[in-house]
Amino acid sequence: MRLVLVAGTTETAKIPGISAAGADPDLMRHTPGADLDVLVHGEPTLAPVVPVSPTGCPTPAVVTRAARELLGFDTLGVDAGIAGRTGSPAVDVGAGAGADVREPTAVPDAEATYERAREFGAALPDDRVVIGETIPGGTTTALGVLTALGEEPAVSSSLPENPLDLKRRVVDEGLDASGLAPGDAAGDPLTAVGAVGDPVLAAVAGLTAGAVESGTEVTLAGGTQLAAAAALVRHAGVDAPLTLATTSFVAADDSAGVAGLADSLGVDLVVTDPGFDAVDHPAMDAYVAGEAKEGVAMGGALRLIDESTASMADLRERIVEVYDRLLAGDGPAVEPAEPPEGGP
Amino acid sequence: MRLVLVAGTTETAKIPGISAAGADPDLMRHTPGADLDVLVHGEPTLAPVVPVSPTGCPTPAVVTRAARELLGFDTLGVDAGIAGRTGSPAVDVGAGAGADVREPTAVPDAEATYERAREFGAALPDDRVVIGETIPGGTTTALGVLTALGEEPAVSSSLPENPLDLKRRVVDEGLDASGLAPGDAAGDPLTAVGAVGDPVLAAVAGLTAGAVESGTEVTLAGGTQLAAAAALVRHAGVDAPLTLATTSFVAADDSAGVAGLADSLGVDLVVTDPGFDAVDHPAMDAYVAGEAKEGVAMGGALRLIDESTASMADLRERIVEVYDRLLAGDGPAVEPAEPPEGGP
Repeated sequence: MRLVLVAGTTETAKIPGISAAGADPDLMRHTPGADLDVLVHGEPTLAPVVPVSPTGCPTPAVVTRAARELLGFDTLGVDAGIAGRTGSPAVDVGAGAGADVREPTAVPDAEATYERAREFGAALPDDRVVIGETIPGGTTTALGVLTALGEEPAVSSSLPENPLDLKRRVVDEGLDASGLAPGDAAGDPLTAVGAVGDPVLAAVAGLTAGAVESGTEVTLAGGTQLAAAAALVRHAGVDAPLTLATTSFVAADDSAGVAGLADSLGVDLVVTDPGFDAVDHPAMDAYVAGEAKEGVAMGGALRLIDESTASMADLRERIVEVYDRLLAGDGPAVEPAEPPEGGP
Repeated sequence: MRLVLVAGTTETAKIPGISAAGADPDLMRHTPGADLDVLVHGEPTLAPVVPVSPTGCPTPAVVTRAARELLGFDTLGVDAGIAGRTGSPAVDVGAGAGADVREPTAVPDAEATYERAREFGAALPDDRVVIGETIPGGTTTALGVLTALGEEPAVSSSLPENPLDLKRRVVDEGLDASGLAPGDAAGDPLTAVGAVGDPVLAAVAGLTAGAVESGTEVTLAGGTQLAAAAALVRHAGVDAPLTLATTSFVAADDSAGVAGLADSLGVDLVVTDPGFDAVDHPAMDAYVAGEAKEGVAMGGALRLIDESTASMADLRERIVEVYDRLLAGDGPAVEPAEPPEGGP
């Protein structure tokens, strides 16, 4: 099993009020590279800061990292347009940063990105991959893609109050600029993602299509963004089983409609509740208050803990340690669990 | 602990008769990317073939991968001029392929490569790194660097009969073309590696210098190539303890003189014998016959096994499995050891 984190950029994130995936718009460009660092190294290495929301909610990478420290799973980064610095190697699928979705073409190299990711997904020998994303602004582009494909246009938000009206207006403008009406790109996923998507969606969709071709079990770790990727895969004619693993925060968000979306796409939905309401700690309170909700494969990480003999209490304890180390300056990175020496 | 594999290219490898790190000169360009794939994924993914020598000796990546499957350590690739394809993410230190050492400047971006690698090495939070290389032709460039620095100019070879005369002629030509006499670059490592080195040497040296700056323990996993990198580090004024971990095949090769070199550089030498002469199997016979000897961190992998509770017999058994899977077409890749579920 390998957890694959697809990291990239869309200029859509710069639209004021549309994303909270970074302390301010300038720092937001560093979020994907930093999230990858936190997952792989346990701390930002060449990235400058640990991503936090404007109100201080820490990146979900803290949760996924905590799960990694407990379970020791392999990871792999995919560069689908990382703009800032990262000290974590990532497979390059040739994608540049995505343009603002209101441009006629948001992802000029959508087809090439999809194909390179597909080839790579087909080449991966892992029996199972858990695929997550980190791309600020990605729920807006997800909304764009779902709308273009004619799927239920509902997405979540990193903000407690989902700025859905803003997103819908932005997507409407984007579809207009691309000469598409809602549903015009049904059965034509590359057109959808090229017009109003982002490079991470193209890469996740390609990776998924390639992985299932080669018999790899795929768990899409996320909420509405990964659901949009699943929609692209289904519209590409790929019928293989797919699982969407998300958090209770996304599932509880009616404006997201993730359960209905999964159902209409023929994708199995699994929802895990990390029990953050059982504790009172800055690492987790903001999630209970409606911030962040998902991202950086958090739903998949929770699912992996659920499948293991570790408990949610173990995870919460480890989240506190990771948070304290990163955001309270408490000491050096902890290495992920390694097997006992000499074990098989 | 993390095993870092620095992969790159030098056109020097194309000189007929100088390297056996690939089945033929055309395939040799794929060796570094394929070695990285074998280490990270257990098989070539986007790289086309498992590297073997012209007489069929399998790449030492098979040994390092076997050790990884037993011990489960983390890995990281560094791209110091990979020419072929690879499905393994690698941190880009900005190096292009190195030119033939007989050119006036073999590594035009030596300083930038060294500095980027140094910054990255300093940023790595691991308590210990084990650094290896994969670059066909790299013992010739190592000879060039050692000669330019005024160190004992002795190197090993992937060929049973070390073509030392050929290498010395090539290096003499290279020094001439760069306007250097032996020893002219003493205390000036960037001049040495820029004139007659390769991008992997620049990257390994930078990575090492940066790692020790940040308190990371460094084990250089290799023979004469890593010794040349150690020489660059010493000539950069870095006095921190360094360990060179190599194989008994290199240590037994008098033409290599690795013990004397380590001693004069103030580097601790550890030598591990994998006991390949105790078995009769194509995966290991060629080493006993004098081929390959080292590479792809093999000496470091043997040392890590030695430090663990796994035995050399365990390793040899696992080498057979990896070999059979890769070169006898026996089945899918095996995932490296993962800790028991719910471990600490």
